[in-house]
Amino acid sequence: MTTTRTKIEQMSAEVVDSNPYSRLMALKRMGIVENYEDIRKYTVAIVGVGGVGSVTAEMLTRCGIGKLILFDYDKVELANMNRLFFQPDQCGLSKVEAARITLQNINPDVVIEVHNFNITLVDNFDVFLNRIKEGSLTNGPVDLVLSCVDNFEARMTINMACNQLSQTWFESGVSENAVSGHIQLIIPGESACFACAPPLIVASSIDEKTLKKDGVCAASLPTTMGVVAGFLVQNTLKKLLKFGEVSWYLGYSALTDFFPKMKLKPNPTCDDSYCIQRQREFNAKPKEDISAPEQAKVKEVVHEDNEWGISLVDESVDTEESRTHVQLTEGVTLAYSLPAATSIVEDVPSGEVDESEQSLEDLARQLKSM
Amino acid sequence: MTTTRTKIEQMSAEVVDSNPYSRLMALKRMGIVENYEDIRKYTVAIVGVGGVGSVTAEMLTRCGIGKLILFDYDKVELANMNRLFFQPDQCGLSKVEAARITLQNINPDVVIEVHNFNITLVDNFDVFLNRIKEGSLTNGPVDLVLSCVDNFEARMTINMACNQLSQTWFESGVSENAVSGHIQLIIPGESACFACAPPLIVASSIDEKTLKKDGVCAASLPTTMGVVAGFLVQNTLKKLLKFGEVSWYLGYSALTDFFPKMKLKPNPTCDDSYCIQRQREFNAKPKEDISAPEQAKVKEVVHEDNEWGISLVDESVDTEESRTHVQLTEGVTLAYSLPAATSIVEDVPSGEVDESEQSLEDLARQLKSM
Repeated sequence: MTTTRTKIEQMSAEVVDSNPYSRLMALKRMGIVENYEDIRKYTVAIVGVGGVGSVTAEMLTRCGIGKLILFDYDKVELANMNRLFFQPDQCGLSKVEAARITLQNINPDVVIEVHNFNITLVDNFDVFLNRIKEGSLTNGPVDLVLSCVDNFEARMTINMACNQLSQTWFESGVSENAVSGHIQLIIPGESACFACAPPLIVASSIDEKTLKKDGVCAASLPTTMGVVAGFLVQNTLKKLLKFGEVSWYLGYSALTDFFPKMKLKPNPTCDDSYCIQRQREFNAKPKEDISAPEQAKVKEVVHEDNEWGISLVDESVDTEESRTHVQLTEGVTLAYSLPAATSIVEDVPSGEVDESEQSLEDLARQLKSM
Repeated sequence: MTTTRTKIEQMSAEVVDSNPYSRLMALKRMGIVENYEDIRKYTVAIVGVGGVGSVTAEMLTRCGIGKLILFDYDKVELANMNRLFFQPDQCGLSKVEAARITLQNINPDVVIEVHNFNITLVDNFDVFLNRIKEGSLTNGPVDLVLSCVDNFEARMTINMACNQLSQTWFESGVSENAVSGHIQLIIPGESACFACAPPLIVASSIDEKTLKKDGVCAASLPTTMGVVAGFLVQNTLKKLLKFGEVSWYLGYSALTDFFPKMKLKPNPTCDDSYCIQRQREFNAKPKEDISAPEQAKVKEVVHEDNEWGISLVDESVDTEESRTHVQLTEGVTLAYSLPAATSIVEDVPSGEVDESEQSLEDLARQLKSM
């Protein structure tokens, strides 16, 4: 075996076996991306370096991203070996440290900063906030935050930080039964934040009652997690390098290979005061300033037998009325129901969103599973 | 760092950090898979260990597949580092040998057999045929062949072998511009073989004229290849472990996050005599024997502005007439047009499938790119 490769000063399109960037720079010649080498300017923060986050970090590293900032506080275990990235000989290492070693070996051109702590703890939150605000290669805000965490609390923490900093981010998730997942673009003020509505999950059409609650660990598959990471990084590349159409919400149901898409409008009665502030700012903006993903038009699909009783609204229609509703696309359901008074799903009878009465225990389990 | 893990005699569902199978065995408790541990009985052959094949092999290894047989004749180069799996310090090693070392380290329970040769050469073809026929853990036929090759000739060779042996396989591919891909299930006699119709590609809506032909290397992205590998292994798991609905054809257009699905019927005038023979056998079978994926019903989507002028036929309708036509779903196009006389796309005016006149040079480039 030869040694690890040395750093490369400038990305080249030269077609030789020794150039790790030739197949990426070819995207320019193919007419897909105008300035691929711009990727070196960008900084992406990844929160959670597990089944989705580690693969996300590896993809961005191989794509030659400028800088990655990784947050996690977990250790590598043999129980993680059913997902891509970590190797058995890394057991016992912190996930961020194991990731740093592997990623730096794959591509020494990427600047990698790691934080081995829990962002939901008060003291760490301030550091987290600071790194989002000043962590880029030029000590400015990062270009994108990618949430790859596995619990509700961490998502709410990221949401709080991003609303406060007006930071664009992608949320991602994989279901407890391992056969569905999603990504969701959140631009504070412009699209629903994580606190605007109950989190959306792709319905698996599996009877939840078959789930036993004792001695349970969530199932996971390298396939579903690899697909979700692929969607996440692909849309990250589209957003940063300005090509194609960035998806607002993209779901994946593995059992039927079904991929729901939609856009979610912010909730004017959201509990997060920073979200309300961002909405005011966004509404005051002239329309030309609306961000690029707005161009993405979700296909309007007519389903007469829509089991949710929800009529889909073409998302290009942006009336005052449509802005106050969650437009649920087929095959997607809310993780739980909000009381009608504070809900932005008032047009959707809650019984049709979730037909079963939910106990707090059920709710806690569902939240834990995201 | 601790040492690599030792072999595990039997898959256990015990929820402890040291059990690499706990999250997979949880699929049983979740009601997704009935007998996950059966995965140890299965053998999968992977032809091509590049951007898609290597990730496919890693996913199956982490899922605990019984045996993998890998075929490739290429060496690892730095130019491959923009895709997942291989590391810079493996440069110069054969891809199958580098893969064997990594995979065996990840999961020593998987039996791994590698062949460092080109299957399209006559002498090697006989060995290839033999390993498909007798390569399983019980010296019988493998359970599935996965094509992860990057050229037309290798696909035709796999097709020839699988038609001859009546071997079920999945074809997969990623476009030359890196932003679309597909998987396709081929059951000889039941669905279209690779020689039945021109290969299908997901239209990228990129003007092909922007492609320059001098000094070109194909573009590739770890995202697109990771997603295609994820779809391939997910459908492999569904097929082997009998859960969910296996997709016949699943496309991925990364620019718009669009996922066309369809089923392709075999061509009764296919040039491959073994295909014709398998069709006769399939048609003579009582209907109950039709394989599981037949249950997969592709959603019927009504698009009034279908740009191909092709009306979609519900694939559950299996009349004599529908069996003689390729039913192209929206967003998918043929890689090239066949002369009308031998074509099974006679209902589709060729001008609407491909609006540009194609030179042999164009055709060669397109085939090379698959």
